[in-house]
Amino acid sequence: MNFEALFYPKSIAIVGASSREKTVGNDVVKNLVRQGYEGKIYPINPKINRLYDLKVYESIEKIADKIDLLVVAIPAKFVAEEIRKSAEKGTKAVIVISAGFKEAGNLELEKELAETCNELEITLIGPNCLGAINAEHSMNASFAAIMPPVGDVAFFSQSGALCTAVLDYAKDMGIGFSKFVSIGNKAALDELDLIKYLHEDPKTKVICLYAESLENAPEFIKVLRELNRGENPKPIIVLKSGKTSAGAGAIASHTGSLSSGDSAYEALFAQAGIIRANSISELFDLAQVFSMNELQKVKKVTIITNAGGPGVLTTDAVVESGLEMAELDPKTVAKLHSFLPAAASTHNPVDVLGDAVGEVYEKTISVLAKDPGTDAIILLLTPQSMTEPVKTAEAVVKMRKTSKKPVVVSLMGRALVAEGVEVLKENKIASTTFPEPAATALAKFAKFSEWSKEKNELALSYDDVDKAKVATIFTEAKSKGQTSFPEAEAMEIMRAYKFPLMKSAVVKNAKEALRMMQEFNCEVAMKIVSPDILHKSDVGGVSLGVTAETVVTEYQAMIKRVAQNKPEAKLEGVLLLQMAKKGTELILGINKNSLGTMLMFGLGGIYVEIFKDVKFAFAPLTRADALSMINGLHCSKLLEGARGEKAVDKEKIIEAIGRLSQLVNDFPEIVELDINPLLVNAEGTKVLDARVVIE
Amino acid sequence: MNFEALFYPKSIAIVGASSREKTVGNDVVKNLVRQGYEGKIYPINPKINRLYDLKVYESIEKIADKIDLLVVAIPAKFVAEEIRKSAEKGTKAVIVISAGFKEAGNLELEKELAETCNELEITLIGPNCLGAINAEHSMNASFAAIMPPVGDVAFFSQSGALCTAVLDYAKDMGIGFSKFVSIGNKAALDELDLIKYLHEDPKTKVICLYAESLENAPEFIKVLRELNRGENPKPIIVLKSGKTSAGAGAIASHTGSLSSGDSAYEALFAQAGIIRANSISELFDLAQVFSMNELQKVKKVTIITNAGGPGVLTTDAVVESGLEMAELDPKTVAKLHSFLPAAASTHNPVDVLGDAVGEVYEKTISVLAKDPGTDAIILLLTPQSMTEPVKTAEAVVKMRKTSKKPVVVSLMGRALVAEGVEVLKENKIASTTFPEPAATALAKFAKFSEWSKEKNELALSYDDVDKAKVATIFTEAKSKGQTSFPEAEAMEIMRAYKFPLMKSAVVKNAKEALRMMQEFNCEVAMKIVSPDILHKSDVGGVSLGVTAETVVTEYQAMIKRVAQNKPEAKLEGVLLLQMAKKGTELILGINKNSLGTMLMFGLGGIYVEIFKDVKFAFAPLTRADALSMINGLHCSKLLEGARGEKAVDKEKIIEAIGRLSQLVNDFPEIVELDINPLLVNAEGTKVLDARVVIE
Repeated sequence: MNFEALFYPKSIAIVGASSREKTVGNDVVKNLVRQGYEGKIYPINPKINRLYDLKVYESIEKIADKIDLLVVAIPAKFVAEEIRKSAEKGTKAVIVISAGFKEAGNLELEKELAETCNELEITLIGPNCLGAINAEHSMNASFAAIMPPVGDVAFFSQSGALCTAVLDYAKDMGIGFSKFVSIGNKAALDELDLIKYLHEDPKTKVICLYAESLENAPEFIKVLRELNRGENPKPIIVLKSGKTSAGAGAIASHTGSLSSGDSAYEALFAQAGIIRANSISELFDLAQVFSMNELQKVKKVTIITNAGGPGVLTTDAVVESGLEMAELDPKTVAKLHSFLPAAASTHNPVDVLGDAVGEVYEKTISVLAKDPGTDAIILLLTPQSMTEPVKTAEAVVKMRKTSKKPVVVSLMGRALVAEGVEVLKENKIASTTFPEPAATALAKFAKFSEWSKEKNELALSYDDVDKAKVATIFTEAKSKGQTSFPEAEAMEIMRAYKFPLMKSAVVKNAKEALRMMQEFNCEVAMKIVSPDILHKSDVGGVSLGVTAETVVTEYQAMIKRVAQNKPEAKLEGVLLLQMAKKGTELILGINKNSLGTMLMFGLGGIYVEIFKDVKFAFAPLTRADALSMINGLHCSKLLEGARGEKAVDKEKIIEAIGRLSQLVNDFPEIVELDINPLLVNAEGTKVLDARVVIE
Repeated sequence: MNFEALFYPKSIAIVGASSREKTVGNDVVKNLVRQGYEGKIYPINPKINRLYDLKVYESIEKIADKIDLLVVAIPAKFVAEEIRKSAEKGTKAVIVISAGFKEAGNLELEKELAETCNELEITLIGPNCLGAINAEHSMNASFAAIMPPVGDVAFFSQSGALCTAVLDYAKDMGIGFSKFVSIGNKAALDELDLIKYLHEDPKTKVICLYAESLENAPEFIKVLRELNRGENPKPIIVLKSGKTSAGAGAIASHTGSLSSGDSAYEALFAQAGIIRANSISELFDLAQVFSMNELQKVKKVTIITNAGGPGVLTTDAVVESGLEMAELDPKTVAKLHSFLPAAASTHNPVDVLGDAVGEVYEKTISVLAKDPGTDAIILLLTPQSMTEPVKTAEAVVKMRKTSKKPVVVSLMGRALVAEGVEVLKENKIASTTFPEPAATALAKFAKFSEWSKEKNELALSYDDVDKAKVATIFTEAKSKGQTSFPEAEAMEIMRAYKFPLMKSAVVKNAKEALRMMQEFNCEVAMKIVSPDILHKSDVGGVSLGVTAETVVTEYQAMIKRVAQNKPEAKLEGVLLLQMAKKGTELILGINKNSLGTMLMFGLGGIYVEIFKDVKFAFAPLTRADALSMINGLHCSKLLEGARGEKAVDKEKIIEAIGRLSQLVNDFPEIVELDINPLLVNAEGTKVLDARVVIE
């Protein structure tokens, strides 16, 4: 992909340049001309001669020079042809603003466009997009009116119209951008391509995107784990819409994309270390907090405030978002006491009182910056008459010069604190209009910091599986047109992948039964085996709680009893089936969707539909993935031995998850699979029942 | 209470007026003088002569005229004395700004202050507060710098410092206030007093408050149900801090108040129809949406947007907040088709496309205002180059003149849409800076609208309870110093209040056993009764599944068996105890806290601590309260007959809840009570075990 030509072109041609104001073809030229682009601009339109003091060309062919970047704003059906012409002028990147492709039902046209660009080795943005902006290169190749300030946040979006609002909001908040791209229908270039480029881009520190649908979760996870658990982690913040089915429906009618259920995206984001913004406003808060602080371990937060109420509200937000309130070191407390008034609170939240001037804030924050138990600071200010928002903001700037501790500021109010907020913006101190979002953003900052320090592991894999056996089962089934494998057959597949099953054997006589029971060394249920008997218990063909001591007597008694009750039945022996001990019934299965194949793991039994206590993760899973599924369940307390029961061996559960991960990875034709229940107790796991469906 | 003197005084004296700038005693005088108060102002300070062109008085005694309102900003210990002096000048209201009372540990001083005001029949605001503002009367009797515009939102707060920020935020958002009060330590006047006054106040449409602790939930519930299910419901929006235990701790050190757990506040808010704001920013959104729309039934929402992405995000927010997306009438769709471009979406969210001008929005909203399936409208706009924010805002204003349907607007961005936002503010159209909060605010609007239409019911009450019996049990216990009632004794209390218990009887011989079993008509467990036998089953003293048919044989066998095994034991007979049928184990109990006595009801058994599927409600409960507890549980699906089981009779559960409500209301000395389990199945409920503790 040629991103150089896209973001740093020396020349840009615009097919569909227009003299009519407030049209796309006019806006793009105007933005390039008026917002400082210094390369060559070639507007193309056979009907006009000049536009914004530029010569307008009749056609691409008439341009003598090289065209690095082509911007297209003409009807969809003519687009591919213009790109071909431009390719002859050395074009390496094209932005197709034109709509009328996939989103309008014209899939073929979009495919042709993508193939053309692929064949010509041209990087394609769009179609159906707003364009791209590189503020650093003073290039606004879009029809959005605002040229953002240069900054280190990259933003790209599947929704073009959202971009204009984002630019306007961001300007107000003092957020600058490194690269800004509307990716539209993403016919050729998708989110992951851009992320890979931006991860290399030295101008970008944080990557933000709005997404309606993503593809290929396993690839996302693999790439982002490599990139973001390396030397240079760059936070990736995603605003993903379509959480609800109504939202997903709106996406389908908006872009023609099918979005998987939100649990799939939650799994992807967790595994790939993607930070999810839950609203547009949170996206900006996160962009600030990540771009203006250095990644580091954050667990304990200290709040400085001149107002009790906001201090309490923010304390709630800190704890609710999963962080902790720092306990201040006694030395810190003593230092605070030395200059704060007696009525001030020197515990966290530190209340410097309503009349605190800038100097008080400055002393306080410089003491807290050195407190050993404080990992990060939230500074709050309400505008009282003695309050000095500017000096207080400057105090934070000063602190930042000597301390790398993350800090987020909320100067509460608007006009009364506006100058203070300006100081923060100019000095790249993260700030939020309201206090509570400072805490939630900081919590996500802490989480990514921690995630990026984790080691990458290989996927769980076991050498002892019998892949050939399962391949044979599937091949035979396919040859018969069979796709569904109920219990007995599914158990064969489970056995081949060495899942722990209940011991069972069919024996033909009492002696054999005894030998088998000595080998089993457990209680069994005994069931008569006969092709002629449907309801075994009606004829005395079932005995429970049989042991090695009682098996011989029971065997003989059962054969005699059944023979009496049903003399015509052919008796082939009895089935000895290990009896399940008490334990927790879990469910382990798969869910295949447009993003990939997820494993599902959680509480089974009667509460499964009520509490929906299940977790998802995309295959293949690492040990950490499996453990995180287990520990993420509410019912994990049960597994840890709540109520006096013995704790379950989590390694055994990890193994069951790992074997399933390996199975579905080895056999992509598996479309449905449920192990239900997976019985779990202190002795390990047992597959009690299973069901498999292949394509 | 004399609120006239507080909010509409003709004269105000300020004890502690100061010439030193940026002090409380200076700010209050300055604010009164400069912000247009037209009554008489009497600054009092023996050391100065003039202040802001006013004569300064040496003492209250020197003022010849009547003083309606006294503002006090002198050290705590002198406050009460000044109030006494002022009372002689006819003062009927006092604002004590001074700190140094309860919050500083001086409880006695605060008590004296409250008693003084009570004795003199003076309405007291504070102490430890910021003051009060009545914009309509041009009176800023506070040390907050901003005089807010006149509006119909009343705001009062337990945190004074929060008030200054609220005024500054609100000014930016165009929210005006009717009354604005910092209530401080609320030594005499509390939230409910103010709510009652503001409910009568014709200038107030919406009541907002910030609270750290409230008192007397039952009284709150009673008063608010009467007020807000009457002719003139006024939404009460509360921002309550101290959700977490860290937050509650911060409150304790901030104001000295003890806050109950958040579940108590959640119960209070639900029963009293109080709307909870979860953040400062939500408080403003709710204030706008409630004050600028008329209460009415809202279930189905239609979104109009010129941008797909924001439309999807808002669709998610609508559904997640509990509302539904409207399905447009075919006639509506046809009308929209007649003027919208082909590429526009005429389904909900209605996408008028990025180039929609004001006229397109106007036509669209006027069509949707008449759509029969649309209860409310959210209008979104992103600033594209053809977009007309002002004309679009004007289109909403026009629609509002002919339709009462609630509407919330989000003009996305800041500078590009600022003029449009101004039009909305001037015309009292609710708007949010970001789109998602429009949906959540609308959902709370819908919920209160519905709540206010519900009928008030009497508390559940049963005539057949034996109150005298329980009184006797408690009196006897108290005389012995007994406070705890384990199973057998607790069951007596349950029996007196006619809770359904398992049938049981002690019988002395086989004949008596048979007669009892014929009366019982159910299976029983049989247990030996003997003062000498501790472990009944060890001596063969327990039989399960005994019926009327087997009881005689079993009785004789048990007596014989036990006599053999334990010859020395004195056998007094056997206990026949009805055996529990299958059912769901629930827990029903009470939780006494600083707000009152709550009933707790939810899923019992091993999942109780894991899923915490319990609901709370303050006693006394109505039928609707009980039903709402039941239906609010996740496990209510189980009760409705999930998985093929018979549905439970909810009336029976309501009755159990109602009887407990009556019991704890009749006997306030009950401090702990648990019915665990309460077995519930298609046949009804059974108390299987109970435990009671009194003071």
